[in-house]
Amino acid sequence: MQSTLDDIIAEVKPLIGQGKVADYIPALAEVPANRLGIAVCTVDGKVFKAGDADELFSIQSISKVLSLTLAINRVGDELWERVGKEPSGLSFNSLVQLEYEKGIPRNPFINAGALVVSDVLQSRLSAPKHRMLELVRGLADDPAVISDKRVARSEYQHSDRNAAIAYLMKSFGNFSNRVEDVLRSYFSYCALKMSCVDLAKTFIYLANQGRPLGWNKPLITPKQTKQINALLVTCGLYDEAGDFAYRVGIPGKSGVGGGIIGIVPGELTVCVWSPELNKSGNSLAGTAALELFTSRLGRSIF
Amino acid sequence: MQSTLDDIIAEVKPLIGQGKVADYIPALAEVPANRLGIAVCTVDGKVFKAGDADELFSIQSISKVLSLTLAINRVGDELWERVGKEPSGLSFNSLVQLEYEKGIPRNPFINAGALVVSDVLQSRLSAPKHRMLELVRGLADDPAVISDKRVARSEYQHSDRNAAIAYLMKSFGNFSNRVEDVLRSYFSYCALKMSCVDLAKTFIYLANQGRPLGWNKPLITPKQTKQINALLVTCGLYDEAGDFAYRVGIPGKSGVGGGIIGIVPGELTVCVWSPELNKSGNSLAGTAALELFTSRLGRSIF
Amino acid sequence: MQSTLDDIIAEVKPLIGQGKVADYIPALAEVPANRLGIAVCTVDGKVFKAGDADELFSIQSISKVLSLTLAINRVGDELWERVGKEPSGLSFNSLVQLEYEKGIPRNPFINAGALVVSDVLQSRLSAPKHRMLELVRGLADDPAVISDKRVARSEYQHSDRNAAIAYLMKSFGNFSNRVEDVLRSYFSYCALKMSCVDLAKTFIYLANQGRPLGWNKPLITPKQTKQINALLVTCGLYDEAGDFAYRVGIPGKSGVGGGIIGIVPGELTVCVWSPELNKSGNSLAGTAALELFTSRLGRSIF
Amino acid sequence: MQSTLDDIIAEVKPLIGQGKVADYIPALAEVPANRLGIAVCTVDGKVFKAGDADELFSIQSISKVLSLTLAINRVGDELWERVGKEPSGLSFNSLVQLEYEKGIPRNPFINAGALVVSDVLQSRLSAPKHRMLELVRGLADDPAVISDKRVARSEYQHSDRNAAIAYLMKSFGNFSNRVEDVLRSYFSYCALKMSCVDLAKTFIYLANQGRPLGWNKPLITPKQTKQINALLVTCGLYDEAGDFAYRVGIPGKSGVGGGIIGIVPGELTVCVWSPELNKSGNSLAGTAALELFTSRLGRSIF
Repeated sequence: MQSTLDDIIAEVKPLIGQGKVADYIPALAEVPANRLGIAVCTVDGKVFKAGDADELFSIQSISKVLSLTLAINRVGDELWERVGKEPSGLSFNSLVQLEYEKGIPRNPFINAGALVVSDVLQSRLSAPKHRMLELVRGLADDPAVISDKRVARSEYQHSDRNAAIAYLMKSFGNFSNRVEDVLRSYFSYCALKMSCVDLAKTFIYLANQGRPLGWNKPLITPKQTKQINALLVTCGLYDEAGDFAYRVGIPGKSGVGGGIIGIVPGELTVCVWSPELNKSGNSLAGTAALELFTSRLGRSIF
Repeated sequence: MQSTLDDIIAEVKPLIGQGKVADYIPALAEVPANRLGIAVCTVDGKVFKAGDADELFSIQSISKVLSLTLAINRVGDELWERVGKEPSGLSFNSLVQLEYEKGIPRNPFINAGALVVSDVLQSRLSAPKHRMLELVRGLADDPAVISDKRVARSEYQHSDRNAAIAYLMKSFGNFSNRVEDVLRSYFSYCALKMSCVDLAKTFIYLANQGRPLGWNKPLITPKQTKQINALLVTCGLYDEAGDFAYRVGIPGKSGVGGGIIGIVPGELTVCVWSPELNKSGNSLAGTAALELFTSRLGRSIF
Repeated sequence: MQSTLDDIIAEVKPLIGQGKVADYIPALAEVPANRLGIAVCTVDGKVFKAGDADELFSIQSISKVLSLTLAINRVGDELWERVGKEPSGLSFNSLVQLEYEKGIPRNPFINAGALVVSDVLQSRLSAPKHRMLELVRGLADDPAVISDKRVARSEYQHSDRNAAIAYLMKSFGNFSNRVEDVLRSYFSYCALKMSCVDLAKTFIYLANQGRPLGWNKPLITPKQTKQINALLVTCGLYDEAGDFAYRVGIPGKSGVGGGIIGIVPGELTVCVWSPELNKSGNSLAGTAALELFTSRLGRSIF
Repeated sequence: MQSTLDDIIAEVKPLIGQGKVADYIPALAEVPANRLGIAVCTVDGKVFKAGDADELFSIQSISKVLSLTLAINRVGDELWERVGKEPSGLSFNSLVQLEYEKGIPRNPFINAGALVVSDVLQSRLSAPKHRMLELVRGLADDPAVISDKRVARSEYQHSDRNAAIAYLMKSFGNFSNRVEDVLRSYFSYCALKMSCVDLAKTFIYLANQGRPLGWNKPLITPKQTKQINALLVTCGLYDEAGDFAYRVGIPGKSGVGGGIIGIVPGELTVCVWSPELNKSGNSLAGTAALELFTSRLGRSIF
């Protein structure tokens, strides 16, 4: 495994320079473009890594899987009355579909869906930002994980589109809390700073029937685990989900910070990071690295 | 396995009466609503069955997987210049997305995509309808498989929407042959009459790295097999693909005749049939049967 | 003229009961449904009236013509860089078109357009709500005109959809001020309380080359007047503009309070009021009254 | 009047070279780009002209007003069950709105609407192409008017988009005849060859309460005349109707051949021709000429 990861880093490195670092907020635009890391965690807890796998980065939309997990853990199947389970076929922040479908977002991984999930957490948890931090620290087994306040604040200052989405859902009765409050929580989740190693460890519960590393009780049920993986395959990579399934062939979730987490159910998690994005907003070198990873190991779900 | 199938038939039977047989053409509307069958074929060729598993029915859109396979076999990756790999997020016969995306269908399983695939076959094969018949007979190991001419003719007479789709693609330069000719071939594929057992055997190549039952050479490569399965998961069940992945958790393809084929990669294929459809146009009892099947056997891909 | 107005009121009265009073905010829902009034003002200042022509009602979207006039008066043709002049073809508060057209509203009479116009006034005027009040009092020659604070407050509390529209435009860079501030001004304009007689007098400048009643200088130029009338014909009655032109045949603007103002260029203005609305949100009896009015007098622009 | 027309031609001439001749079919692309003509016909039959006012050109979509007139003449208000009266807000040949609105075109001047009107004529007339020719010859008082078969044939060969539109309406039950037959008639109407003088004379009935020049009975009623003019103002210039009303201020209809007919109700018709089109597909110099015309004469309807 170690040599496979080393090889992948070497082979993918030349792609750096072909993508574009996210620049819609200054705090993200500053990230060095030439980083590349990969980490693997197996269900029995072994960790392998290569490249910049210990460097912290902004997990951004990868946090949507964590907030969804927390919401399912709290409200169970009720959640699906407020958000769908289908691919969107449109860009991740479009309002068109939301209007035609009367304020019910297509799935929990487009922005509208993640905002509804955050709205649920806002209603159910007394201190949602703190609770998320606690959860992530517990999953990553790292009490030092923090959310970058500067990034969160900067995103809040550029949140007009997300505010429009939230108000539109509110006008359809599918949003309970103050838009401002939910946006602040949402950006706090997005601004979590973690490394490839942290994330590979954090998401092992999705490869292991809902059981986090070193916990003595499950976070979610095996059935819920399977369901989240299904959602990741059909909706995890924005409007590139089909292509990712076709090329990489495992459940995955990307963030504009350049991270992507992938799940090989029953076996392992793999996290890659490289800040330059392709046209669909997914890490360019990261996607290539995952494609090599599943090909080399013969570890697709298909 | 046998007892599992028997149990599933018994448990799902009471759902009959809750769906609605497709009635957009008379030939399909006549099918007895109370049929229910299931068949399993393993990669080593064992067949199990229960209920009406030997009764012939119209495979309809399940044929789209066969025409896609044939097209990939003939033109390889070139195909993807004319059709996408992403879920559509809209109903299977919508023209809206097709217009915004300049005549390139989202994926090969919506009608627009299947028509482009049929157009490719029309250009590449001297006798496309006959070639398809030959292929299916070879895959099912049954020289008696036929296409129901009455059904094909009836569909052709109700094909205004499909003609609109084809002409729209033609106006964008993504359609080469005469619309009438391609529609006739397309409906001939859809009108194939097969049983659950036939279909389970036919599709074993998707569970077995591209190798059909009893053939001494593969039909497609292992990589192409994996790719088709990925497309089935993200796009195989119209606008219910996400829900199907969530509940059933395997690659699958449905038809308005009430059949659904499912693939458990590396292990087996499973085919169900029950003519009554749910609101999304997929077999109601069939979907329930597949959900039970993957739960009982613990055979999800996630 | 007087007998024509009396006849119209008598003939249209039986329609009351067939429409539905706007009930999206409590303050509007309370209005007595059975009111019906009509007033005419000629360019030489003669006023005719019948029915409840002196009763005050909430002018709502009719105010969009006033804010447009004020904005044109202040910024001239520059305004058209931020808002279009074309009919929308979609419901008055849709976000779909706004997203496709990158935050530029189709015309100044859909909500998005009126919000941009209000944003312009917010930037250009030191006290926009007060300035609007002053203008209207001057046009109607009635210092007692007020804006109903209870109605404005109630609308602000139900403004999620409008907030979504404003934030969406802000995300495209087409909105300068705080959303909250502009919404408060916008609802203050909408909540103006005026009678049919007030409105007929107020809008005489559109029938008279830009010259208000009793003013010694014009409010806008003859060309600007002609342009506003053109916009009223193509976009003044939401998605019923075509039907209104077809049946009534003069420039007009409606409000959900049940008022409609009509312009016969060079001759007169006519204002009707009846709170019950048809399916497109325009006064049902009011539209019928205007249709009779232009037919009886032979005063269409076509 | 004569000197006004001469002046307009002189002033507008320099615009030639800024637009683009329609080139979607070879037969239209051949037209000399530098032509410019204008003709006026008054309700009492006086004709004025300047520039290339006697040269024949392809009237294209201007024919939609003639087919609408014929259909209203035959079926009256029934027509409006199959086609709407509202502006479309989308490009003239879009299928999106048609799908959302279940096959009912927005108005008779977008392609879908004109095809429905042609379908009505196909059902009601024994020889629709011949009947149209007869009508136009009678209106223009010129037995030599013909339809250019080469143009019609060329358009038929490039009619995939229109075929898609017709089949889509057929799938919704809003199209009765064979698509091929209606398309042939439709293109025959479009391919009529007429001059500015011909067209100004032909359309005088729209300025004169439905009475054609020199006929002793009206073609349509005064009310129907008013209604067609209303439709022209709101929908006559594709997605530039609002801008045309704003700048020119009279009912009008354009064609891709570069002609535009304008109506000043009660007074006159004016026809301009210049083959180069602007981005919306309307004659660039022609629009400018009409703007000058209504400004100089003070003849807007607003």
